[in-house]
Amino acid sequence: MINRLMEDIRKKQAPIVVGLDPMLAYVPEQIEKAAFEEFGETLEGAAEAFYRFNCGIVDAVADLVPAVKPQVAMYEQLGIPGMIAFEKTVRYCQAAGLTVIGDVKRGDIGSTSEAYATGHLGGVEIGGKKLYGFNEDFITVNPYLGSDGIRPFMKVCKEEKKGIFVLVKTSNPSSGELQDRLIDGRPLYEHVGEMVAAWGEELMGDAYSYVGAVVGATYPEMGAVLRKIMPKALILVPGYGAQGGKGADLVNFFNEDGLGAIVNSSRGIIAAWKQEKYASFGEADFGGAARAAVLEMKEDIGSALAAAGRPV
Amino acid sequence: MINRLMEDIRKKQAPIVVGLDPMLAYVPEQIEKAAFEEFGETLEGAAEAFYRFNCGIVDAVADLVPAVKPQVAMYEQLGIPGMIAFEKTVRYCQAAGLTVIGDVKRGDIGSTSEAYATGHLGGVEIGGKKLYGFNEDFITVNPYLGSDGIRPFMKVCKEEKKGIFVLVKTSNPSSGELQDRLIDGRPLYEHVGEMVAAWGEELMGDAYSYVGAVVGATYPEMGAVLRKIMPKALILVPGYGAQGGKGADLVNFFNEDGLGAIVNSSRGIIAAWKQEKYASFGEADFGGAARAAVLEMKEDIGSALAAAGRPV
Repeated sequence: MINRLMEDIRKKQAPIVVGLDPMLAYVPEQIEKAAFEEFGETLEGAAEAFYRFNCGIVDAVADLVPAVKPQVAMYEQLGIPGMIAFEKTVRYCQAAGLTVIGDVKRGDIGSTSEAYATGHLGGVEIGGKKLYGFNEDFITVNPYLGSDGIRPFMKVCKEEKKGIFVLVKTSNPSSGELQDRLIDGRPLYEHVGEMVAAWGEELMGDAYSYVGAVVGATYPEMGAVLRKIMPKALILVPGYGAQGGKGADLVNFFNEDGLGAIVNSSRGIIAAWKQEKYASFGEADFGGAARAAVLEMKEDIGSALAAAGRPV
Repeated sequence: MINRLMEDIRKKQAPIVVGLDPMLAYVPEQIEKAAFEEFGETLEGAAEAFYRFNCGIVDAVADLVPAVKPQVAMYEQLGIPGMIAFEKTVRYCQAAGLTVIGDVKRGDIGSTSEAYATGHLGGVEIGGKKLYGFNEDFITVNPYLGSDGIRPFMKVCKEEKKGIFVLVKTSNPSSGELQDRLIDGRPLYEHVGEMVAAWGEELMGDAYSYVGAVVGATYPEMGAVLRKIMPKALILVPGYGAQGGKGADLVNFFNEDGLGAIVNSSRGIIAAWKQEKYASFGEADFGGAARAAVLEMKEDIGSALAAAGRPV
């Protein structure tokens, strides 16, 4: 899966992942209305609206990007109907040839992480068959519980040829409260970066590891340091666009080969139709606006990498 | 909710929470067989077996304990059918008068934590109505992203009079890899404990706060320190029984009033029927075995507290 993802990034010349993080405020009226008419003003109706909206976005951008990243919280907020929409979204994206990164940020003690790994990356054995639950291709995981909270994910990754992205330095303003604290003279996130590099050595694809890292676009200097600490980790970079990150800030996250990072944008793409800049597409053509936003993001990152002598 | 929980702990003389963490290996054959006959050897069948097993446990112990703690990972591993069993379990327990602590360990950047808080503790506004998803009474949350990952949960807790338990020092063997690292001469978990105490001051019930903490029974000395740092936090203590914690280790987690902690046991109770000690109950009376295990746990903790001069 990591090899296919790296190959798709190169082929599509797009180190970009589209964050499928729907909110009702982003869903065009015609979709919301149809879903509510069919399913009522219920959790089912809202979930169906999310799913149809996602399909429209995916149809518009699937040829441009290698991957999508649905944020499970957006679906979980709608309870069971939301989780059904999450699963349908994962299946729809995979059928469109996209790699699906489930942004689930799970992590617990060993036996519990094992269950999460089973639900999101692997399958359960029942009656001699292996039955799969959500079955994403990659997921994000939280390292606060240490290595015995991470290893069960690695075990399933090895069996299924899937991958994880470990939270190292997150994009939010308060991420430093714990992550930047100095331990033996170096910030916590560097220590976590070293753990990621060590775990990654045990689970290598061709050039990059099945164990990647999350480092926020909003902290480019830390990105440069972490890039060196984890040379073989694919870095998933949230925080571009709506959270403030720009193409020029991203160069640090890439290796000399122009690879090594994949940048997420959610709102900036899926809600592009609401921006002044893309208003000409109109509400009905929200997909066209999303496509234009992806092309602009591709250009922004591509020219920043070219200027730094690191073309994709 | 925190006041009711503290009152129920006192009334039932049981600072005990039963971990509803089903695995097929714990489900008696008669339940598994019936569920598989009805729903096939499928995820639906396994999920139904979990649900019926939980109901049997709850029926057997509901009068003895104030709360249950379903670990969502066990359900998530079965995909959508598992999540339906999780939700049905939450409803069944609430109908039985139990406080439900969803062990979900969620946590993300602000807008995403908001969605998790909505899904697990609050509701979404659709068509002027507030619609609830999983709707637990408390949940566990992960602090790695700092305060803007926690505050959205606190906001919903305030609106809904519900609560959170923040991971401070977890019960697993590798928890120290990050949590014990020294920052300004003190371990990370103490710093997190101070954050919990500060957040907790903002959201007080009568004597205890809506913001509690998770501290593992397997680290009793750290429990003593954290008890002092967070005097008004209810401490959720996992790691009793199967993970190695004993009654005498737990005294440190309680305040002088004999309150302030609630101890979880999962396997030790729900799979009691598989232990030599409770073999006389037989597989069919797994509920009787669970009840006996709860009574023994109550006696173990109660006598340890009495010996320390801190009766519940």
